[in-house]
Amino acid sequence: MSVIATRRIEIEWGHCDPAGIVFKPRFFEWFDAATAGIFTHVGLKKPALVARFGIVGFPLVETRARFLRPSKFGDTVTIESRITELRRSSFLVEHRLVNGGELAVEGFETRVWAGHDPSDPSRLKSMPIPAELMALYPGTPQAVR
Amino acid sequence: MSVIATRRIEIEWGHCDPAGIVFKPRFFEWFDAATAGIFTHVGLKKPALVARFGIVGFPLVETRARFLRPSKFGDTVTIESRITELRRSSFLVEHRLVNGGELAVEGFETRVWAGHDPSDPSRLKSMPIPAELMALYPGTPQAVR
Amino acid sequence: MSVIATRRIEIEWGHCDPAGIVFKPRFFEWFDAATAGIFTHVGLKKPALVARFGIVGFPLVETRARFLRPSKFGDTVTIESRITELRRSSFLVEHRLVNGGELAVEGFETRVWAGHDPSDPSRLKSMPIPAELMALYPGTPQAVR
Amino acid sequence: MSVIATRRIEIEWGHCDPAGIVFKPRFFEWFDAATAGIFTHVGLKKPALVARFGIVGFPLVETRARFLRPSKFGDTVTIESRITELRRSSFLVEHRLVNGGELAVEGFETRVWAGHDPSDPSRLKSMPIPAELMALYPGTPQAVR
Repeated sequence: MSVIATRRIEIEWGHCDPAGIVFKPRFFEWFDAATAGIFTHVGLKKPALVARFGIVGFPLVETRARFLRPSKFGDTVTIESRITELRRSSFLVEHRLVNGGELAVEGFETRVWAGHDPSDPSRLKSMPIPAELMALYPGTPQAVR
Repeated sequence: MSVIATRRIEIEWGHCDPAGIVFKPRFFEWFDAATAGIFTHVGLKKPALVARFGIVGFPLVETRARFLRPSKFGDTVTIESRITELRRSSFLVEHRLVNGGELAVEGFETRVWAGHDPSDPSRLKSMPIPAELMALYPGTPQAVR
Repeated sequence: MSVIATRRIEIEWGHCDPAGIVFKPRFFEWFDAATAGIFTHVGLKKPALVARFGIVGFPLVETRARFLRPSKFGDTVTIESRITELRRSSFLVEHRLVNGGELAVEGFETRVWAGHDPSDPSRLKSMPIPAELMALYPGTPQAVR
Repeated sequence: MSVIATRRIEIEWGHCDPAGIVFKPRFFEWFDAATAGIFTHVGLKKPALVARFGIVGFPLVETRARFLRPSKFGDTVTIESRITELRRSSFLVEHRLVNGGELAVEGFETRVWAGHDPSDPSRLKSMPIPAELMALYPGTPQAVR
């Protein structure tokens, strides 16, 4: 079974647009924090992760979202996030934002485990995901070592 | 030929994250404005559009983006946006963000032409895209009346 | 004694700028939600407040902040907010953002209790703060009925 | 005479809140970019400035704003920004956001010219503003060497 991290978000006035619903880019902001939250959930807060594994981060290389129901100011929503696939140096994340018991937004991310390129420190380079991290997600169905 | 609207964005300090590159949700914010800009480009600023056609807006129902190269603080980027397909009550948009002559981000949107639902004004309902608007994009290859 | 509402915020990657610290406009975003939170704290969530008292909101007319210590990605901060003065149709709010036991940001707001102007519904007009609300903040030192 | 830099901003849908007006924290975001723009205006784009003078930046230590008129989606506003006072290691900035010929927002900033603290590179330390920069603002009334 993969780790599922959840977070609760209160929809604030400032999250919403003139139609009174969440301005869509906010969801990507929350999904970004939610992905970091998956690691926090297993004790690896992103700053610690960055320090421990010598990475710069795990930048997003591709993302996709479907907006099924609007979320309004005053709503409380929950985001459930999980890593659905760990590849050699990238991983896939799925976010399900639920509002009032119904799926409101689905988000999908492809992220790369990245450090500084030794031949040019101003550039990023993908790095193998450490075995230690792999071990935290033992049942991830398609995990590939 | 479809209408192509372009906009230039200076990457500011506040657009960037601790890695010194644009925080990804910003691209979706810019793409949202760029889509409105396609209509502005043909003389239909969004507030006028909303008033004239009795719509609430053209909410995003699905989006996807690929991040090919980072954009850094101090860079000047250009977004080229076009409607690639007009359907009965929805349309597809493609954004190409170019930085230093190279494609840096590609974005794709599916949007619905939406008004208030007459049976429940608190809800949105898709509406047929007006012929007048269709006429503005005569050469859109897959335009369907 | 005045009501003090508190909220905890985890500083996320996307809240920070290239110096790795919170981009200052974020604090104003959080203070805005924190002010709404003062009312939520006494059972009046902003959407309910808007509906019950026929207001449009309580727009900010003036604000001021002092940034004493930076807050970094990975920090957990707390915002303590209270109404320091209730006037006839405006009120003052003070926010204290504490990080690691030390005051990091102080924010001050002047807000107006506002509804639609009956003579021109497209404009806002200040309205007297209802006695019912006044009663919730009995000890506010400078409360004026 | 002090240098006055101006920038024009189109108010987009995503800048606005459910009342259809600009969500206030956006103004601070724009003022931040406008301050960087003052230097760009005299040929010193912020990344160049940072590299040339060995600073980390010019962090905001205090700010204040008055909101006189709302700015709505579809409006085009102009921000006029100038350095009103150069001190030994800090400077004051004033921003005037004009909408439809009327002053809509006034912003005031106190910023520190800051580098890494030599005794602890993880901390910032104020530094004297270079004479070269001072010379660019000869007529700044209260300039103090």
